[in-house]
Amino acid sequence: MEKQVLKIVKVGGKLIEKEEDMKAFLSDFSALKGPKILIHGGGKMATEMSEKLGYKTNMVDGRRITDANAMQVITMVYAGLINKQIVAKLQSLGSNSVGLCGADGNAIISKKREVKEIDYGFVGDIENINTSFINSFLKQGIAPIFSAVSSSLDGQLFNTNADSIAAELAIAFSEMYNTELLFCFEKPGVLKDSADDASVIQVLSKQNYEELLEEKIVSEGMLPKLLNCFYALENKVSNVLLGGKDLLQNDTLHTKITK
Amino acid sequence: MEKQVLKIVKVGGKLIEKEEDMKAFLSDFSALKGPKILIHGGGKMATEMSEKLGYKTNMVDGRRITDANAMQVITMVYAGLINKQIVAKLQSLGSNSVGLCGADGNAIISKKREVKEIDYGFVGDIENINTSFINSFLKQGIAPIFSAVSSSLDGQLFNTNADSIAAELAIAFSEMYNTELLFCFEKPGVLKDSADDASVIQVLSKQNYEELLEEKIVSEGMLPKLLNCFYALENKVSNVLLGGKDLLQNDTLHTKITK
Repeated sequence: MEKQVLKIVKVGGKLIEKEEDMKAFLSDFSALKGPKILIHGGGKMATEMSEKLGYKTNMVDGRRITDANAMQVITMVYAGLINKQIVAKLQSLGSNSVGLCGADGNAIISKKREVKEIDYGFVGDIENINTSFINSFLKQGIAPIFSAVSSSLDGQLFNTNADSIAAELAIAFSEMYNTELLFCFEKPGVLKDSADDASVIQVLSKQNYEELLEEKIVSEGMLPKLLNCFYALENKVSNVLLGGKDLLQNDTLHTKITK
Repeated sequence: MEKQVLKIVKVGGKLIEKEEDMKAFLSDFSALKGPKILIHGGGKMATEMSEKLGYKTNMVDGRRITDANAMQVITMVYAGLINKQIVAKLQSLGSNSVGLCGADGNAIISKKREVKEIDYGFVGDIENINTSFINSFLKQGIAPIFSAVSSSLDGQLFNTNADSIAAELAIAFSEMYNTELLFCFEKPGVLKDSADDASVIQVLSKQNYEELLEEKIVSEGMLPKLLNCFYALENKVSNVLLGGKDLLQNDTLHTKITK
């Protein structure tokens, strides 16, 4: 029997900060048929809240560190404010949803990132996805909405990359479903020229990616995202797309990742 | 067939602000057998966060008003920080739980409190409890952990009294279960003398309550809590108790409410 399609959508970047764009995006998400999961970031709002609270951003070797204050803000802004506002909005659109972080039902278990040169603080790398708990919502027609917060088994909340959560969810569910992974952000896809939104690379293979790397065409922020895409494709995820706020509509310009 | 007992526990007051007391309380909650629900407040932490953010507390006729800034802080602190820290802690104690607000699965639907003399702002009064959604967790052995945030059907989050949420949950579930309602706070029960923790009124009927009212013995903060207790008892809740952080243990001093 053909497996059902499960759409796993990550929304992030500047898209999440623009109220009108988010409204349009959530309207498209609510219109998606079949089982679906949403993962959201919210980086800039957390930074703004930290500044308002007078918390210093802690950097080591140019890398942002999640100290106790930063983790408090992330839990408030990601798992509280943004997550619950998204859920309330989706409910008003008639789309039943539930807002979760990794601690809820032990949905996403992580452990503190190993300290090598840098101690990233409260940053967790994913160890396990509880597909049975998450699937209990999908079977009820309820969309799980995940903030980028995971938890260790000993009760520590961790800041966890939202792209990685999306990829790991898609991989974990690829036994049960045909999983599609969709990354929505402020650009219509991977661009050849970052100043030109029409320069979308419509199909991007691993070989293309390595060429782009050599030519230094792809922006630095895009690199880990693309690595997550290839990682997902190499681990049984059926389809990986990157695009803008309209990606969930049919026939919009976007980037399709291929092996 | 005898109905199963469902324990609905509200934790609030100063108890929630004391880390060691909360640890002990959550350890007792995790040890409770059978289906259970936890509702938490977190008033003082929200006030402190508002002050740190430079938000003014908005008062009208001596009553606190939930303006847009206050609602933002409540969503962050109640539905985010406190809720997820409780869930992570319970998971580490081996007690499976899920953190929810009223918007999640349309669990607790409210509408804006009617404006009469005072406009309370983003304060919602409960209209409906989605017992079927909440029961889906209880049947899986997962404890729902509710913050004091509800939602209207048109997607507005509302600040909602945690005692009222507890009472309405107990009433809504009294068809399916024998519901017990337990209010845990910083005092060992309703006190005759607020300075003397040994002066617990062990059994308190509606008639006693009216006598206490006349004698002005019960503190002002306790009055709405007691009204919630009688309201629950009059609506098929089997057992209503008030007590301290040890209330979930057997044989501790407490107040039992009777009709």
